[in-house]
Amino acid sequence: MSKVLVTGHQNPDTDSITSAIVYAHLKNQQGIHAQPVRLGEVNKETEYVLNYFNMEAPVLADNEVKQGVEELILVDHNERQQSIEDLDSFKVIEVVDHHRIANFETMGPLYYRAEPVGCTATILLKLYKENDVEVPKDLAGLMLSAIISDSLLFKSPTCTDEDIKAAQELASVADVDPETYGLEMLKAGADLSDKTTDE
Amino acid sequence: MSKVLVTGHQNPDTDSITSAIVYAHLKNQQGIHAQPVRLGEVNKETEYVLNYFNMEAPVLADNEVKQGVEELILVDHNERQQSIEDLDSFKVIEVVDHHRIANFETMGPLYYRAEPVGCTATILLKLYKENDVEVPKDLAGLMLSAIISDSLLFKSPTCTDEDIKAAQELASVADVDPETYGLEMLKAGADLSDKTTDE
Ligand SMILES: [Mn+2]
Ligand SMILES: [Mn+2]
Ligand SMILES: [Mn+2]
Ligand SMILES: [Mn+2]
Repeated sequence: MSKVLVTGHQNPDTDSITSAIVYAHLKNQQGIHAQPVRLGEVNKETEYVLNYFNMEAPVLADNEVKQGVEELILVDHNERQQSIEDLDSFKVIEVVDHHRIANFETMGPLYYRAEPVGCTATILLKLYKENDVEVPKDLAGLMLSAIISDSLLFKSPTCTDEDIKAAQELASVADVDPETYGLEMLKAGADLSDKTTDE
Repeated sequence: MSKVLVTGHQNPDTDSITSAIVYAHLKNQQGIHAQPVRLGEVNKETEYVLNYFNMEAPVLADNEVKQGVEELILVDHNERQQSIEDLDSFKVIEVVDHHRIANFETMGPLYYRAEPVGCTATILLKLYKENDVEVPKDLAGLMLSAIISDSLLFKSPTCTDEDIKAAQELASVADVDPETYGLEMLKAGADLSDKTTDE
């Protein structure tokens, strides 16, 4: 079976990196050969997240990885200027996203799942449930991290009740305290370690 | 609460008319004031369907109906040239569709549910289940009719296993035989009654 790449947007944030990993896992459980990739460097916050839950970052979508691949799944974005540079070389077969739709078009029908929530991970939790697949503990940690990141610890105006409920459920599966963990995670992202005491 | 209009495409077919009715009903069950509308005349096939299940056609989306309405739900289409002429006067808050995505764009996040199946009704059946709402007998008949129409009685190459399964389930709720009913319905659409014996 030919490989499908699952990718978030350029300048990837925690939601883009973790959603690629988490959705590729769901696809794998359904017998589809999906590989998560990234379109840029992992930021400090995401690095903290991956270390904490002992997960590896997706590989960079370079020419070797793209070799022979025909199909793409987009997560956490849909606008072409935010996507893989050679988007037109692929058929986008699915999108899972929580942003407005713009500059997006396909030749044929596809699976497109957007919901007006604060984070892709919140939608992915629904997809796991709809498909009766259990969320593994480490992936629950990644999904929780994405919600904390996109919602700035539930304080962003884009954060919905559904995001908060999803985060609570995922925190209990991941067995972490969202507030304590979330603050540490956001601090790691603020990247204080690289700054001098003058800043 | 302000009213939301649910509309299919221009030159409406059976899927566009029935999906507007069926999705508005689901929204009503969820406490949302949704009204199905149509963007053109009901064709002979759809007329047969509505008569058979004793349902009324949605009203035409004229100025009186649109008065004061701000939000729109699109079913069975997304491309702006197939939609309501004054699309930009509204905020599209949801789309449920089974076509490619093109010429579609929003200012903000929305609920967008597309699946690569043969008919909008097949997706609507999933939405009823996901939201734990029972499909009433007459609406099951409309949904079955939409699948038969879009799939030309399951013979179209766009017809998927999911459409066939949905149709079987809906036929049993509607208590009709899909083959017998479907042939009569397609015959009504072929509009033989208007033609002379020479044709
Ligand atoms: Mn993002
Ligand atoms: Mn996001
Ligand atoms: Mn149609
Ligand atoms: Mn259709």
